[in-house]
Amino acid sequence: MNVVFIGSGNVATHMAQAFKSAGCNITQVISKTLENAQMLADRVGAIALTDFSMMMRDADFYVISVSDHSITTVAKYLEAIDGIVVHTSGATAMNALNKCRHYGVLYPLQTFSKATSLDFSGVPLFIEASDNESLKVLNTVACRLSKKVYNVNTEQRGVLHLSAVFVCNFVNQLYQLGAELMKDNQLDFEMLRPLIMETAMKVQNRFPYEVQTGPAVRGDQRTINNHLKMLEPAPALNDIYQLLSDSIKKTHEY
Amino acid sequence: MNVVFIGSGNVATHMAQAFKSAGCNITQVISKTLENAQMLADRVGAIALTDFSMMMRDADFYVISVSDHSITTVAKYLEAIDGIVVHTSGATAMNALNKCRHYGVLYPLQTFSKATSLDFSGVPLFIEASDNESLKVLNTVACRLSKKVYNVNTEQRGVLHLSAVFVCNFVNQLYQLGAELMKDNQLDFEMLRPLIMETAMKVQNRFPYEVQTGPAVRGDQRTINNHLKMLEPAPALNDIYQLLSDSIKKTHEY
Repeated sequence: MNVVFIGSGNVATHMAQAFKSAGCNITQVISKTLENAQMLADRVGAIALTDFSMMMRDADFYVISVSDHSITTVAKYLEAIDGIVVHTSGATAMNALNKCRHYGVLYPLQTFSKATSLDFSGVPLFIEASDNESLKVLNTVACRLSKKVYNVNTEQRGVLHLSAVFVCNFVNQLYQLGAELMKDNQLDFEMLRPLIMETAMKVQNRFPYEVQTGPAVRGDQRTINNHLKMLEPAPALNDIYQLLSDSIKKTHEY
Repeated sequence: MNVVFIGSGNVATHMAQAFKSAGCNITQVISKTLENAQMLADRVGAIALTDFSMMMRDADFYVISVSDHSITTVAKYLEAIDGIVVHTSGATAMNALNKCRHYGVLYPLQTFSKATSLDFSGVPLFIEASDNESLKVLNTVACRLSKKVYNVNTEQRGVLHLSAVFVCNFVNQLYQLGAELMKDNQLDFEMLRPLIMETAMKVQNRFPYEVQTGPAVRGDQRTINNHLKMLEPAPALNDIYQLLSDSIKKTHEY
């Protein structure tokens, strides 16, 4: 199976390598800057390109993994292609590709950084396609990349993407705020790492509601007040503390 | 070494078991309700008590692991004891025990649930003591319980406790909000679990600042606006989304 990748960012990098490991032949990587295209192309044994004039037109699969606002622009170059064209965006409707002949979505729900490697077979993949035949092919490919493949529609994928912002990006920002508090008091972020791991581990086989701990779920207003006082010099942290404590109380009905 | 435990909650349960595994002899567990005292006493081969009149007065160690507001009340019963009296609270000053002869703090920075077992040797322990001799003994004991023992003062311990609320309790509440969004849209929380794990894994050898992803750090205001619109029916979630996105932007200076 011949695959063309458009894009060379975090998602494209991890996905292209997963396709490669699954035995697919990545023929070309197309990206705006040659340097980025070349870096990914080198990793997966492909040719690097910066424009679409040299793109091979008879590949089986075209994976568009670019920033959301560039997807429709890129799709224009793929309208007369017979292969299946997919994008990898959680926040973009499948219909952004509806000028293509066969199209779909292959959305990986994971946080990718180029410098961090991960086991792609555990990454949940969410697929959607324009027609049954394309869905069948897309499903076969997805199952070679990951053990966790789900069919979802555009609306559900939007909810997945929004939920991911809460459990990943916002969670990471809370790690960041914790790191800042520690640093301001000559304490090492390393001290928080085991707690961070355990907090994530606990919800791997239980639900967050069941395992909540801390002052807000205990209704321990004295500790909450002490913490708010400690945060008086940092109004932004104070607001976040207040809002999330209220959220915990509401969830547990205090 | 003979140890008396006062308390039978989540922290007492995990800690008493760790003392036991480290070869200490837990002689008694004292708790307000006999049922709870008995449950923990059975786990560690101790006698269960509900009041202090029968407490053995020549143990080497007394561990007070009760709710913060009960610590001073409990400490009254331990004033004439020669053994070392410690509490396990992050939010309580060591001086809460200053009527005792030898006293200190043994604070485990971890989220404990009775139903969840964990490897105690990886739990960071923060110690403080009233005198050098007690600190030496406390340090020896702590090092038998865990590989990660740190000396901190009361003020630093308060910061650790506050930081833990951010990276554990608030993080778990974000998992909860994600779970609610998923459930409201007939999606399974299971789909988010690999992302939750990876988000925690990423900061085990890097810093949160380096690995942030998502719309806010990219300055992708279109996606942020779409998400805020999706959250219009849920004002509490909308506020949290806004506040944490602003926090990410501020951290990364947009």
